[in-house]
Amino acid sequence: MCRWLAYSGTPLLLEGILYRPAHSLIDQSLHSRMGVETTNGDGFGIGWYAQDTDLDAPAVVRDVGPAWNNRNLREIAKTVRSPLFFAHIRASTGTAVQQTNCHPFRHGRWLWMHNGAIADFHLLRRELCLAVEPGLFADIEGSTDSEVMFYLALTLGLEEDPPGAVARMAGLVERTGRAHGVDHPLQMTIALTDGVSIWAFRYSTERRSRSLFYSSRVDSLRALHPDLTFLRDISDETRLVVSEPLGDLPGAWHEVPEHTYGVVRPGADDLRPFAPAA
Amino acid sequence: MCRWLAYSGTPLLLEGILYRPAHSLIDQSLHSRMGVETTNGDGFGIGWYAQDTDLDAPAVVRDVGPAWNNRNLREIAKTVRSPLFFAHIRASTGTAVQQTNCHPFRHGRWLWMHNGAIADFHLLRRELCLAVEPGLFADIEGSTDSEVMFYLALTLGLEEDPPGAVARMAGLVERTGRAHGVDHPLQMTIALTDGVSIWAFRYSTERRSRSLFYSSRVDSLRALHPDLTFLRDISDETRLVVSEPLGDLPGAWHEVPEHTYGVVRPGADDLRPFAPAA
Amino acid sequence: MCRWLAYSGTPLLLEGILYRPAHSLIDQSLHSRMGVETTNGDGFGIGWYAQDTDLDAPAVVRDVGPAWNNRNLREIAKTVRSPLFFAHIRASTGTAVQQTNCHPFRHGRWLWMHNGAIADFHLLRRELCLAVEPGLFADIEGSTDSEVMFYLALTLGLEEDPPGAVARMAGLVERTGRAHGVDHPLQMTIALTDGVSIWAFRYSTERRSRSLFYSSRVDSLRALHPDLTFLRDISDETRLVVSEPLGDLPGAWHEVPEHTYGVVRPGADDLRPFAPAA
Amino acid sequence: MCRWLAYSGTPLLLEGILYRPAHSLIDQSLHSRMGVETTNGDGFGIGWYAQDTDLDAPAVVRDVGPAWNNRNLREIAKTVRSPLFFAHIRASTGTAVQQTNCHPFRHGRWLWMHNGAIADFHLLRRELCLAVEPGLFADIEGSTDSEVMFYLALTLGLEEDPPGAVARMAGLVERTGRAHGVDHPLQMTIALTDGVSIWAFRYSTERRSRSLFYSSRVDSLRALHPDLTFLRDISDETRLVVSEPLGDLPGAWHEVPEHTYGVVRPGADDLRPFAPAA
Repeated sequence: MCRWLAYSGTPLLLEGILYRPAHSLIDQSLHSRMGVETTNGDGFGIGWYAQDTDLDAPAVVRDVGPAWNNRNLREIAKTVRSPLFFAHIRASTGTAVQQTNCHPFRHGRWLWMHNGAIADFHLLRRELCLAVEPGLFADIEGSTDSEVMFYLALTLGLEEDPPGAVARMAGLVERTGRAHGVDHPLQMTIALTDGVSIWAFRYSTERRSRSLFYSSRVDSLRALHPDLTFLRDISDETRLVVSEPLGDLPGAWHEVPEHTYGVVRPGADDLRPFAPAA
Repeated sequence: MCRWLAYSGTPLLLEGILYRPAHSLIDQSLHSRMGVETTNGDGFGIGWYAQDTDLDAPAVVRDVGPAWNNRNLREIAKTVRSPLFFAHIRASTGTAVQQTNCHPFRHGRWLWMHNGAIADFHLLRRELCLAVEPGLFADIEGSTDSEVMFYLALTLGLEEDPPGAVARMAGLVERTGRAHGVDHPLQMTIALTDGVSIWAFRYSTERRSRSLFYSSRVDSLRALHPDLTFLRDISDETRLVVSEPLGDLPGAWHEVPEHTYGVVRPGADDLRPFAPAA
Repeated sequence: MCRWLAYSGTPLLLEGILYRPAHSLIDQSLHSRMGVETTNGDGFGIGWYAQDTDLDAPAVVRDVGPAWNNRNLREIAKTVRSPLFFAHIRASTGTAVQQTNCHPFRHGRWLWMHNGAIADFHLLRRELCLAVEPGLFADIEGSTDSEVMFYLALTLGLEEDPPGAVARMAGLVERTGRAHGVDHPLQMTIALTDGVSIWAFRYSTERRSRSLFYSSRVDSLRALHPDLTFLRDISDETRLVVSEPLGDLPGAWHEVPEHTYGVVRPGADDLRPFAPAA
Repeated sequence: MCRWLAYSGTPLLLEGILYRPAHSLIDQSLHSRMGVETTNGDGFGIGWYAQDTDLDAPAVVRDVGPAWNNRNLREIAKTVRSPLFFAHIRASTGTAVQQTNCHPFRHGRWLWMHNGAIADFHLLRRELCLAVEPGLFADIEGSTDSEVMFYLALTLGLEEDPPGAVARMAGLVERTGRAHGVDHPLQMTIALTDGVSIWAFRYSTERRSRSLFYSSRVDSLRALHPDLTFLRDISDETRLVVSEPLGDLPGAWHEVPEHTYGVVRPGADDLRPFAPAA
């Protein structure tokens, strides 16, 4: 499995989130506490939206080695400042360790990253690939279940209705799995963004989903911890969604409930129930 | 495009073929004379059958950097001795530079490598992938046309009738291409082996196929060049099939004619006409 | 040998310089016209000064594969905007292909890159390393002559007097070479910057130095080519120093004369004679 | 720190030792039990002596990614059979992750690998490098303490008297360290071979050395475990020396005592006290 992090809020150098926290994502690449594997060393990726370019799409940098010893990641993190970015560290469950299997995946303005697995993906891969919109099929570059899930969601309306499309994708994966005799086809935490809002999902067929947390509103944190000066420089609406908390600050982290998705966006965040669509 | 080499005969250290000739495959990785690109630096691979193990399958080592500066390739070439091996250097036409896109591809006892391209593969990829036997589909790991061609040939009877299966694959690719308005769908030189025989194909829809050569029988070469002592240690039936000659020894190399395939095997080699099957 | 490029002027996305010109550095990685080798595929690096961070040091990203197929380089080039950056593509003359042998090298605020070689460096390496300031010695991470030249220049006063330090370094290399019976010890084009000025040197003992060019003042170019709209967005003082011209625009490129160095800096640029210091 | 393994005895496929044991070295790359770090994912290497070539030197394959996901290592391990081989997995203590920093290191017929560190190596590096025989200095390719220790031992007579040279190297490191105010300069387990004998050392200045074990004589193991059929195919004198046991077979593993070295060789093995030479 994997670990990931999604940030939205006051534009920050990536370094401040990726490296500085006590239990940062880089630390998790060696010492994950809540992951299925302690080590997440089979590649990594970051995707970010720039402040000062007129790019339609986010930038994505991915590499196949471990994040913990990657010097280029550290350099980029020291100079890239972004109001919305994703980061992911990978623990392969057998599929090839290659750049095209690293998250986040990108399509136009959209980024997608995943922790989890489609059970017996080897059995279901062909049928799920066939369900991808023909015009999108040839853009699939890697061999992961995660990328196929993204292309299924794109096929099923992601750009118009993200939560609906993810629900339809999850429903399709479960029906396909069951048709092939797979008991618990889906295990997923997913983050998804168009550069403005972030949608984060926690779901698994057997209701034992991988961990997922979100950070408290910064104004509440500031009230709890008036001594933490760095909180003064961050907007009230700054949010992190993470596979596991980046530290032990009391009051800072909340678990996303089972079978739930959240929306992080300007104005008001939200938590809602999630269920695969029939 | 790419360059490749197939060897069958007296067991040799790979080094003798890969590095020593004046215009060796390693030299071709920097200075190809007959290729579409001078440089073939987007990965490489070797596949070999061992003499002294009871392995059912050949070993395959592939990597994403250029062959010319790869120290591990040089080390392996110094110690691996084999009676039948393939080597390939890649020049990507746009698909990802990753291990799973490097040749040779392996399935059971079989190795496959390719130079050329399916024109407009992006358009045809889905339909060709759908034609792959469902039980084989999930084994496709990369994103190249070359690998899909291999799986199509496997689907169409490669293990029973190699030339027939390649002809059926070529026919399928051409029909699919034409149905999508592609004028000249196929350009290929292919090498294929089960560890005993090698089949090598030269074909392109527009009859302007990439270069392909085979070496003379060693007994003829010995008669021509009685002074070349290394020829004394090599069996009469030792053969090379190569994208371009490894040197300028007079009488050593013959072009495989257009729309032709050859079989290298114990007993008697053969050249025969090749045409896609309807 | 290698190819390199140094940019100073109106802040630009790196992409505009690295990828867009007809004979860009990326094109030179496959098709150098004036280099010793056509192919420069043994690693690459970029170093840039950010506009909007309070970093004391430039960022440096280097990798061991070829530049032409590196997707991360392309992503970074699309989002990083900088008023002063270096880029380098490497053709190894035998030393290991590893990140620590890729240029540019960094020390504090300084960047250094090199094309050329110390002749018989294997013979001279120890003596030259011993001449490096003891406190700097342990920072040498790679095994190239280029990095040792940088550390020698740092030892000999680079941070106070860049041209003087390079002259003393060149003198030391030549004396050391001659003491070991090397006829033409030094061949170099070097670029050097502190983030404000760029110094570029062209020198070789035998007076047959590698190619080096600088771009015309933008106001002159604008007068010559009033139709080129992109020139309107670039300041008069924007300059490129390059191993070979990035295109064929008449009047755009001037050769740096033999045994010469230039300074690019706010206010006034300069060309002056260069000679190793006794 | 790192983990390593040295094998001598009945020629085996590397796979049988590297992958098959319950707590194999590959397993240790993710889940070391006795190492300073759980994860050893900063590169790996193998070095082996071939049975059937007339090579003077062993082959060495090293790469910078983790061993656990390296497909080429698995392929090589399935086909290379050797009577004497080394394997090493690296956990960098900060030095660059690059091929030239991976173990084993080779010089002529000799292989060297190390687990441990010279304390404050940054402080001592220059002085230790200066102590290397000038003719050998230029062969140092990487930036590790381990490689410098090897070159010091070569300088101090390794090829004539391996244990004496290692003792002199250890003495030199300790004297140099103390001269720079380093309390406990040396921490090491080392394996060393000329292709015939293996010497393995366990030592640290503060007498808290990293773990080191050797396997029982196979005839004793056979008596203890008459049911283990694989023991019947292995010669009595086959031995493993390992950073940590490869499994839990009762009677199979013995700790190398503190400040001790062992010799594995045809005829009779030996354990002897080790002390740095004055």
